[in-house]
Amino acid sequence: MARILLKDGEVYTGGQVVRADVAIAGTTIETVGAVAADWPADRVIDCTDKLVMPGFVNTHTHAAMTLFRSYADDMALMDWLQTKIWPAEAGLTGDDVYWGTMLAIAEMVRGGTTMFADMYFFMDEVAKAVDVSGMRAVLSRGMAGVAPTAQQALTESEAFYRNWHGKAGGRITVMLGPHAPYTCPPDYIKKVIALAGKLGAEIHIHLAETAGEVETCRKEHGLSPIALMADLGLFDFGVLAAHCVHLSAEDIAILKAKKVRVAHNPGSNMKLASGVAPVPALLAAGVPVGLGTDGAASNNNLDMLEEMRLAAFLNKVAGFDPLAVPAAKAVAMATAEGAAVLGMGGVTGEVAPGRKADIAIFDMTAPHWYPRHDRLSLLTYAAAAADVHTVIVDGRVLLDGRRLLTIDEEQVKYEANRRGLRLVGK
Amino acid sequence: MARILLKDGEVYTGGQVVRADVAIAGTTIETVGAVAADWPADRVIDCTDKLVMPGFVNTHTHAAMTLFRSYADDMALMDWLQTKIWPAEAGLTGDDVYWGTMLAIAEMVRGGTTMFADMYFFMDEVAKAVDVSGMRAVLSRGMAGVAPTAQQALTESEAFYRNWHGKAGGRITVMLGPHAPYTCPPDYIKKVIALAGKLGAEIHIHLAETAGEVETCRKEHGLSPIALMADLGLFDFGVLAAHCVHLSAEDIAILKAKKVRVAHNPGSNMKLASGVAPVPALLAAGVPVGLGTDGAASNNNLDMLEEMRLAAFLNKVAGFDPLAVPAAKAVAMATAEGAAVLGMGGVTGEVAPGRKADIAIFDMTAPHWYPRHDRLSLLTYAAAAADVHTVIVDGRVLLDGRRLLTIDEEQVKYEANRRGLRLVGK
Repeated sequence: MARILLKDGEVYTGGQVVRADVAIAGTTIETVGAVAADWPADRVIDCTDKLVMPGFVNTHTHAAMTLFRSYADDMALMDWLQTKIWPAEAGLTGDDVYWGTMLAIAEMVRGGTTMFADMYFFMDEVAKAVDVSGMRAVLSRGMAGVAPTAQQALTESEAFYRNWHGKAGGRITVMLGPHAPYTCPPDYIKKVIALAGKLGAEIHIHLAETAGEVETCRKEHGLSPIALMADLGLFDFGVLAAHCVHLSAEDIAILKAKKVRVAHNPGSNMKLASGVAPVPALLAAGVPVGLGTDGAASNNNLDMLEEMRLAAFLNKVAGFDPLAVPAAKAVAMATAEGAAVLGMGGVTGEVAPGRKADIAIFDMTAPHWYPRHDRLSLLTYAAAAADVHTVIVDGRVLLDGRRLLTIDEEQVKYEANRRGLRLVGK
Repeated sequence: MARILLKDGEVYTGGQVVRADVAIAGTTIETVGAVAADWPADRVIDCTDKLVMPGFVNTHTHAAMTLFRSYADDMALMDWLQTKIWPAEAGLTGDDVYWGTMLAIAEMVRGGTTMFADMYFFMDEVAKAVDVSGMRAVLSRGMAGVAPTAQQALTESEAFYRNWHGKAGGRITVMLGPHAPYTCPPDYIKKVIALAGKLGAEIHIHLAETAGEVETCRKEHGLSPIALMADLGLFDFGVLAAHCVHLSAEDIAILKAKKVRVAHNPGSNMKLASGVAPVPALLAAGVPVGLGTDGAASNNNLDMLEEMRLAAFLNKVAGFDPLAVPAAKAVAMATAEGAAVLGMGGVTGEVAPGRKADIAIFDMTAPHWYPRHDRLSLLTYAAAAADVHTVIVDGRVLLDGRRLLTIDEEQVKYEANRRGLRLVGK
């Protein structure tokens, strides 16, 4: 059991930034504050002029879509999907997904992310990448009831749950991943519910991402996507709902009553022109809201600091309210509240005794960290992913002074590049 | 005369990214493309795996306000100004402004910016910082007709113009800086116009930043701020207008007819909840639009890549149009069009023979630069300021492999930090 001492840092704990040491024993944080001088550390990391943060929790992405980063932008959603993304995805192999996911993990770790929620396919390969890299993840095999693979997706999801849930030293959680109401008709959602009940699994789904989706759902079913899912009983399981952009007051009341947890993806929602999620209203209603990057094809990076900043900026300007989503709230959404959204509240997302040692250490020496009036403001509004110096997941150092320890980054970039180009016929 | 050869890079020139060498002779770009093997270079910079870009043009900032970075956020504009910023600014000395500006320049150079438009006070100190650091800048002494310093500001502006316009080897341009219609009543604007006529100076002003400003102006003068300024004759000079958020169709027609150039500040407009400038309408009308960071107190960094991304993201979501401000347009706004907005079109803002050698070289080896489907998309939607490897202004290397050559960065951070804390009573 490795024992790591983070010495003399400025530590974000209990909602405050304080000078403290952090003692990590094995996978867990043992002490935050004064650590006895004779505490037997295997390694001491000097955190002078560094900000010790809980690692970021990316509550919604499609990691392997890094392969399509910069392939097709500035297009209308259906045109983009039908003429670009779906044809390119049709050529994907399991190996492609493995290397695309590794590229995503390399980028996420470099940006201080220690846990992510993923929905894609070839999920055994994604799980292997998580296992090898040392990351923490919530993984879901995306299922579309309208696709020829509808039944296969259910079968694979069950096998994937049985093979990987709780594995990789407990770093992998498996959820079921019905893609969205518009790709999963009610009959199919009922099959997903039956499977969730059988396995005791939670659910990861896209909900109310675009105005068109909501309109079509109301036309076809007489209900909003949120009301339809509630009606079908999907929300009787723990549900992680991505996007939730177009919501009525009734939808928000349902989300609250059913304890649905929301992944807000401001970058993706802006780039795809989906709209502005009513985050202040969700927060006021007491709905848990985390932050997500969505896939790199629609973002186009996996930078959680950028999502924090966008969550603050977008919700301020959309409501003409400069007080909306202040810095401290953006930080909480990216850390403790994100963990809660993934069903890991009290387990990770905080630098506190007894929590998993999932930590991102920021170097505060770049010019944009001066003057030091307010650390959380500097982090939210001025900092950059490149400031991340060291990252620890489950007590293991994954990034050490900006060097990735568990990933052969040159190989990952080489493989992801040639595979990405091949998939689009270059 | 130093001769620098940028060898084997991918060069953004003529709206395309092509493999090319760039030969710099003295302050000017001599060749882009095939450079003769016997071209006598004093220095060769290997640009393998690098993107050679024109340096970014930051068309609106208040550089020394870095001193107030993170001091006061998430507040309503007037509360922020009256209870925080103005009291803190009251204690500023010329030395404070010098060090705050140097901090801004250090950050801007590190982020690939080679020219900025500044409006503040103690402008002799700002000019010295620009001179010493090697940056290019358009400088304006901010003037408020409602302030006790109204007459002094006019006198200082004239002296500043005579002392610094065209100085620092031609790297400094001076404009007159009437702050805004709501701080400069018509009589005062007329004095500014008289001075501009006498000197042959152009104008830098804030216009139509908030809905409240426009409403008050209409109430007091029966005209929008744009129409009022046109009426007074301000637009008969070359005018750089910052913000232009709240515009009528008539306002846009006036801006076009009067050849006013606009500085769009999406980060500041979002953070302060000012609103969304009608950029697609301005572009459609043929009004030149550049990008600006505004001051670090209201942003909170000076990262032009972030402004490019926000200009694309914000204008897409605001108009529900994913095609609005595509990547190539964001790049142009941050470079050639930004230069035109500052009255330097055809002089800088492009990597092309005969242009000033103002260049930012991006290292493309971070994970977010893969796969390499589209360089301009990667730059706009995925890249980071930390990717900037080398920066050249006026043929002089200011940033060399991420090391600042003309700025003592440790001293700048030390001075800016202690002065920033002193100004807010810490």
